[in-house]
This record gives sequence, structure tokens and C-alpha cells, in this order.
Amino acid sequence: MIKTDILIIGAGPTGLFTVFEAGLLKLKCHLIDALPQPGGQCSEIYPKKPIYDIPAFPEILAGDLVDNLMEQIKPFEAGFTLGERAETLEKQTDGSYIVTTNKGTKHQAPVVVIAGGLGSFEPRKPPIENIQDFEDKGVAYIIKDPEVYRDKKVVIAGGGDSALDWAIYLTDVASEVSLVHRRNEFRGALDSVEKASELAKLGKIKLFTEAQVKKLYGDEQLEAVVVKHNDSDKGESYLEVDNFIPLFGLSPKLGPIGNWGLEIEKNAIKVNNAKDYQTNLPGVFAIGDVNTYEGKLKLILSGFHEAAIMCQYAYQLINPGKRYVMKYTTVGGVEGFDGTKKEAKKEVVQSIA
Amino acid sequence: MIKTDILIIGAGPTGLFTVFEAGLLKLKCHLIDALPQPGGQCSEIYPKKPIYDIPAFPEILAGDLVDNLMEQIKPFEAGFTLGERAETLEKQTDGSYIVTTNKGTKHQAPVVVIAGGLGSFEPRKPPIENIQDFEDKGVAYIIKDPEVYRDKKVVIAGGGDSALDWAIYLTDVASEVSLVHRRNEFRGALDSVEKASELAKLGKIKLFTEAQVKKLYGDEQLEAVVVKHNDSDKGESYLEVDNFIPLFGLSPKLGPIGNWGLEIEKNAIKVNNAKDYQTNLPGVFAIGDVNTYEGKLKLILSGFHEAAIMCQYAYQLINPGKRYVMKYTTVGGVEGFDGTKKEAKKEVVQSIA
Repeated sequence: MIKTDILIIGAGPTGLFTVFEAGLLKLKCHLIDALPQPGGQCSEIYPKKPIYDIPAFPEILAGDLVDNLMEQIKPFEAGFTLGERAETLEKQTDGSYIVTTNKGTKHQAPVVVIAGGLGSFEPRKPPIENIQDFEDKGVAYIIKDPEVYRDKKVVIAGGGDSALDWAIYLTDVASEVSLVHRRNEFRGALDSVEKASELAKLGKIKLFTEAQVKKLYGDEQLEAVVVKHNDSDKGESYLEVDNFIPLFGLSPKLGPIGNWGLEIEKNAIKVNNAKDYQTNLPGVFAIGDVNTYEGKLKLILSGFHEAAIMCQYAYQLINPGKRYVMKYTTVGGVEGFDGTKKEAKKEVVQSIA
Repeated sequence: MIKTDILIIGAGPTGLFTVFEAGLLKLKCHLIDALPQPGGQCSEIYPKKPIYDIPAFPEILAGDLVDNLMEQIKPFEAGFTLGERAETLEKQTDGSYIVTTNKGTKHQAPVVVIAGGLGSFEPRKPPIENIQDFEDKGVAYIIKDPEVYRDKKVVIAGGGDSALDWAIYLTDVASEVSLVHRRNEFRGALDSVEKASELAKLGKIKLFTEAQVKKLYGDEQLEAVVVKHNDSDKGESYLEVDNFIPLFGLSPKLGPIGNWGLEIEKNAIKVNNAKDYQTNLPGVFAIGDVNTYEGKLKLILSGFHEAAIMCQYAYQLINPGKRYVMKYTTVGGVEGFDGTKKEAKKEVVQSIA
């Protein structure tokens, strides 16, 4: 059982900054995220994209924003349970909560903060009737370890960077790579498009454009796919393959959190903005893109401010009756749990006479 | 008459970031500040002090924060009325407001945002009975142009950086420099204390420690000051001087804004947090340290978020009935009023076949 003061569901920018604000109040945090690394969307979806509306950053890449936040929270030694999805929330008789992940890891805390962004990102699945029968039996939506495809016959579907880059990469690993895309135009970095085009000319990638995978065949394990061309004159192609990897991007889903008894409105968790961003469950807060209240703006900035306010109330819940006097970091500095101390240089008091 | 969409009182970090959020909504801003440069306290009081709690900055000097904000808002071409204090607010029949400064400059806007921080900073005056009689007649609380003191006999009072640094500087300008401080210890940068000490030994600064200026004499113009030593055995010193400059720091005062008919609570302006940070006067908002509401945290971060939300409501007031659809800067980029456009590199759409 992992025990902490504040258990944060979601390690995106809002969840990460919560560690800092909690740390100033001497509260320890642990974060759970379904993705294998911290940063949420910023790391997973658009690490190389610039953001322009973070205060005092005329421009910052999403990946750099995450790196900066990780450095800022380092003194507060947060714990991480990554690559696991928070599955259940159970209230204990002492008022604390136990959150268990899909892999069975258990966490206990008096305060739970849902900083879940738009939800956990799940792969978009193509509408093929029996695709679920072959999941983990030749069909995968994410490539975790490319070595799995060593000397295999692989079909990738999709027209974005992910499909292009993996198709290119796997030409050196798999025995046969096919790439299926329903249009003729690819949406990816210029050099990826050119490289894939070149490999197609060399016969290293079998290219099927204006076409879609429509049927899957196999006895237990995937054995073949049927590619249907948009132009019905071209008919269908039957490909004997070991693996089918549709890479159509990720789509956010509120997921299991939707079953925790929280008041939900338009796929977001209702909170009381005027006060503390607490949900209808006492001790469970929701901040960042996952929450909603009158006038809510879905900005990263909003999550940062909500985190600061929420931590003040979490402090009161965890330390009932104890009074906290806010000190400015400019005046009081930042004392890490790791023994580090950052502070402004002290003024010199010296006798002059 | 200066006309704008949003008139911002206070050019501290919150006021500056408002220009950015307004700019995204195509609204133009003009800022008024009593200080001679933008940045508020960050520029005037502690430009070289590090701040640790700005999200994604593990550490940033207050002066650099202001520089970054100035760069971030540059595309939105805000106007500035600096070195003037907003004095009166008058509602017009069309619902707009006219704000006039102490120097008579008039500004008109449909929306007024008070981002006044702790108020306007006014010099702390020493308790000398007739000091007001000599203001601008030999007595000054701020040194604007040191050349005013060329070949004059000057007395500076104070024990901080400001008093030390000006005393040192004026030894090359004035014909005589005296420095009076009520303690024996100075509170300043180490090298300033050492330098002043050295100049005192060389006789270039006449040092009076454990002493205070108690009386001023003169006929119209200041002619002499009386320095009283703490140790009564040492008695008083009578100094013939041209100028007396007490440098005891700045103290924030809500000032004339307190008379604008706004609901005030504990020296701050009450706003409705749950909605839009509007005050009891329609079209007049208050954001940042100057406002108060349940759960308010006086953080720079709070002002940034309040600015973002407030601008949405300002947009609705200025464009009644028009619907604004928020676009993420990551997706839509930032279009400046100066013709500049920042945006993420577009994905490439290219035919591969």
C-alpha cells in the first residue's frame, strides 16, 4: 500500500504543479498516470509544439514546459505510479480513500485530487467488426517494443506521423511492412513523408493508399487482413500477415473515474469554484481540464491556479484546526523534502562606523 | 483623450498579462501606473530577487519576469501612461468611464480593470513636523535626476541600499554629502556597505549613525537641518544644506481608488470570484493583489488566472451578443496587432504515391 498526503490522479502540468504547491505546505504527493511518462498530453501528444499563453513564456515547447515543472517539483520528492490507470476509489472508515489501479497497485490518502485532463488517452480503434477478438493476438494499437515484430509480416494503418514513422522504422525489423491509408495524402513531417515515399519505391514498404483494412481472419491468432480499395474497380487485397497495427491516434476518455460517484456534467467533474474545487465527495478535488464550473476556462494556467487554491484546503483537511500562514517564496524561500533550500540572498547587516 | 477597449490601472505583472489575454480576444489595452516604468513592485522594489512559485520557472528574478511579460505582450501594442497616478473615475452616459490622472491625462474605455497590486507606492516620510513645507523646496523622497544635486550640499537619511547607493553616487556630484542613519548597522549589499564605509574614512561622506534628522530650517527654500544623536550626551549637529533626501522606502497606499465608490474590505476591492472578478461598479473589474474574495490567495499566479477569466467577460461587455470561441494558442497561434503571427509549424500534407 502506497501512502501519501495528497494522491493525484493525472501527471499532466496541473498534477505536476500541485506537487509544488503542496510541497510549500509540507504535504507529500503521489501521482498515478495511465501514460508511461509524466506530462500528460504535453508529453504524449504534442511535445514539440509551442504554447504561447503560459504567463511570462512568450513561447515554450510543451515538452519543455513539462521538463521545467519536473525540475521545479524535484525538491518535493513526489512518488509516481506510471503506466497504470486509476480504476477504483473506495472510502475508508477513517475518511481516507484507497485508489487501486488496473494493475492492482493500491494507494491510500486523506485527500484525492483528480487532475485528469481530458481523461485517460485511449487509442482510436478502426470500425472492424471482429477486431477485439484479435487484440493481443496480432492486433495492437500502440507499439511498445518494436522487437515484438522482428521477422514478422506487419500491416500498419494510418496517415499521420505515428503510422509513417513506425512503418519506416519497422522496415529494418519486420520481414514485410505494409502501410494502408484511406487517402492519398499523408499528414506528417516532410522528411517522414519523403522517406516513406522512397522506401515504397524501393519495395520495402508495400503501400496501399485510398484503401482501408476491412476484415481480419485467423484461428485464435491473426493470420490475414483484407484491404478494400476506395475505388471499387480495384477490389480487395488479401494479405497474409502476423500483425495488424492501426495507428489512428489517441482519444481522451473519462474512463473509470466516471463510475466513482462524482457529479459529472458534459464529460467533466462539477466543482464549487467559489471555494476550493472540491467535488461532491468530501476530500476529493478536481482541478484542471477535468473539472467544470461557471466561467471555467480550459487553460493550463487555470489548472495551475486551481492547484494553488486547492492545496490550501487540502492542508486544512489534513491538519484540522492548524493555522497556515502563507509566506512568499521571495521572502521565505523553498525548503525541499530532500534537504535542499532555495532562497533569496540575505541582505547584509553590517556596521559601517 | 486616450481611448481604448480595456483601461488597466496598474502595470505590474497582472496588468501586463491582461494585455496578452485581451489581445487574444482582439481587444486593445492602455495601462496607467504611478511608477515611471512597467513591472510594479517587481521592477521597483525587488528586481534582483528570485521568485520560486511561478509555474514552470524553478527560479526567476522578478525583473526577468517583467521583461518576459513585456516581450510576450509586445505584439498587442498596449499604450502606457507612466509616472502618473489614476485620480478620478467618472461614468459617462454611454456606460463608458473616463479616468483622469494627477497630471490631468484623460483616458476613456468601456471596461476599466484595476490591477493595482497593493496600491500605489508612496515614499515613507520621516515624522518631521514641518517637512511638507519644504517638499520640492529642498526636500525630495525620490531621486529622479541626480544632476539636480550638482555642487549642492546634500543630506541623505536612511540605512538601506537606496540610501547607501545614492550617498556613494552623489559624492561625485554634490559638493558635500552627509548620510544620517538611526542605527549603526546598515542593511544593504555587502559591497555598498564597504564602499560607503571607505568613502566615510576618506571624508567624502560625512557619516552620522545612531542619529536622526529632527528639524528643518529655511526661509522658503531649505537652508539647514538639525541632526539629533540617539546618545543625548552627543547632543545635536546643525548642518547648513541645500537638500534633504529621506530614503526610507516605499509604502503601498490604495490611494485615490479608495474614493471611487468601490466596495472595500481590508484595504482591498471586493469582487465576485465565482464569476468574473467584477466589482460593484458594472464594467469595472479588479484583479491581482488589489482584490479580495473568499479563498483569495495573493499570488502573482492568481492575478494571471483572474486576468484570463476577466477578459472573457470584458469581451462580452464590449461585444454584446457576439459569441467568442476560444482557440488554443497551440492550435490557432497568436496574431499580433502589429501584423506579426506566431504559430506552430503546420503539419505537411503531401501525396506519397
